[in-house]
Amino acid sequence: MQSRKETINADLHLALVHYPVTNKKGDIIASAVTNLDLHDIARAGATYGVRAVYIVTPLKDQKALLKRILAHWAKGFGAAYNPKRAQALKLIRVVDTLQDARDAVAGNHRAAATRVVATSSREQRKSVSFRRMRALVRSGDPHLLVLGTAWGLAAEVIASADYLLEPVRGTTAYNHLSVRCAAAIILDRLLA
Amino acid sequence: MQSRKETINADLHLALVHYPVTNKKGDIIASAVTNLDLHDIARAGATYGVRAVYIVTPLKDQKALLKRILAHWAKGFGAAYNPKRAQALKLIRVVDTLQDARDAVAGNHRAAATRVVATSSREQRKSVSFRRMRALVRSGDPHLLVLGTAWGLAAEVIASADYLLEPVRGTTAYNHLSVRCAAAIILDRLLA
Repeated sequence: MQSRKETINADLHLALVHYPVTNKKGDIIASAVTNLDLHDIARAGATYGVRAVYIVTPLKDQKALLKRILAHWAKGFGAAYNPKRAQALKLIRVVDTLQDARDAVAGNHRAAATRVVATSSREQRKSVSFRRMRALVRSGDPHLLVLGTAWGLAAEVIASADYLLEPVRGTTAYNHLSVRCAAAIILDRLLA
Repeated sequence: MQSRKETINADLHLALVHYPVTNKKGDIIASAVTNLDLHDIARAGATYGVRAVYIVTPLKDQKALLKRILAHWAKGFGAAYNPKRAQALKLIRVVDTLQDARDAVAGNHRAAATRVVATSSREQRKSVSFRRMRALVRSGDPHLLVLGTAWGLAAEVIASADYLLEPVRGTTAYNHLSVRCAAAIILDRLLA
């Protein structure tokens, strides 16, 4: 099945937010970049035909770290050793703010059509079901799916989004997936 | 929804195999334990009501490393800082071989009823569909779902399993999910 081509009419972009997110106490923080988040989410994105993965951080040292990691896999030893990693990591764009990510998505489209979809592990009013979001995403309009690191997206991000996707629920009351695993499941539910 | 209880009649166990697996060239190797595999797969397992997560490695130094990591989260600083991690990591059992894992699962049951389900990212003859495996797992018979690290399970593991699950496919020809993300998607497809 290696030759199977993308047949779904989706224009989905991801944003992995490191600021503004919350810590355990609910304070707004800037989280550190996790190397495996980049790899796992880029690889899941490539698997499901995501157009770009925006890594959102305003921190200079974190952006320098990102640059080194991406260069290792794009041009350094990693590129020759594992070209499939390089292929996935080409999806990554480093931006200062979520607005920058939104502008980048909208730049290729009628700006009004770009929809921002926040995610949360907590049930909240007015969340949109996977079924409904699946139809929206597959309509072909550009969507930016926003994932939070640390203890999740700041309330202001959720409030300003066009939609809030319902939480991923398993079969127990345990509700603490990693953002890597949550991203993979969300892509599978929306696109597979 | 924090009070939702497990209602699915599944008796699913996971094994994450570090030996025997293949490297890039196809040689049989013992891979190193990845810290985030433990966390992500245990958290996904807890989310979907998995009974136990067997970490398979015959290497003494790797077992010592596992012991240190698990102690940190069960009894050390991590336990107090993030008790949800401790809760998930309680699912982990460290074993020398896949047979040990199988014996442990079978020990609680009629041995004959325990089914071993191998996984692979490559299409192979006789693989079982997600739809069929979902029905089998939900029958209540014990199943041990076997995941490979590095470049995947050795052929002998796949050959000796009762079933081979079909690969997780996205919507493109890119076929290189991390084992963490693949595990999460498989659990979601079988149990959610």
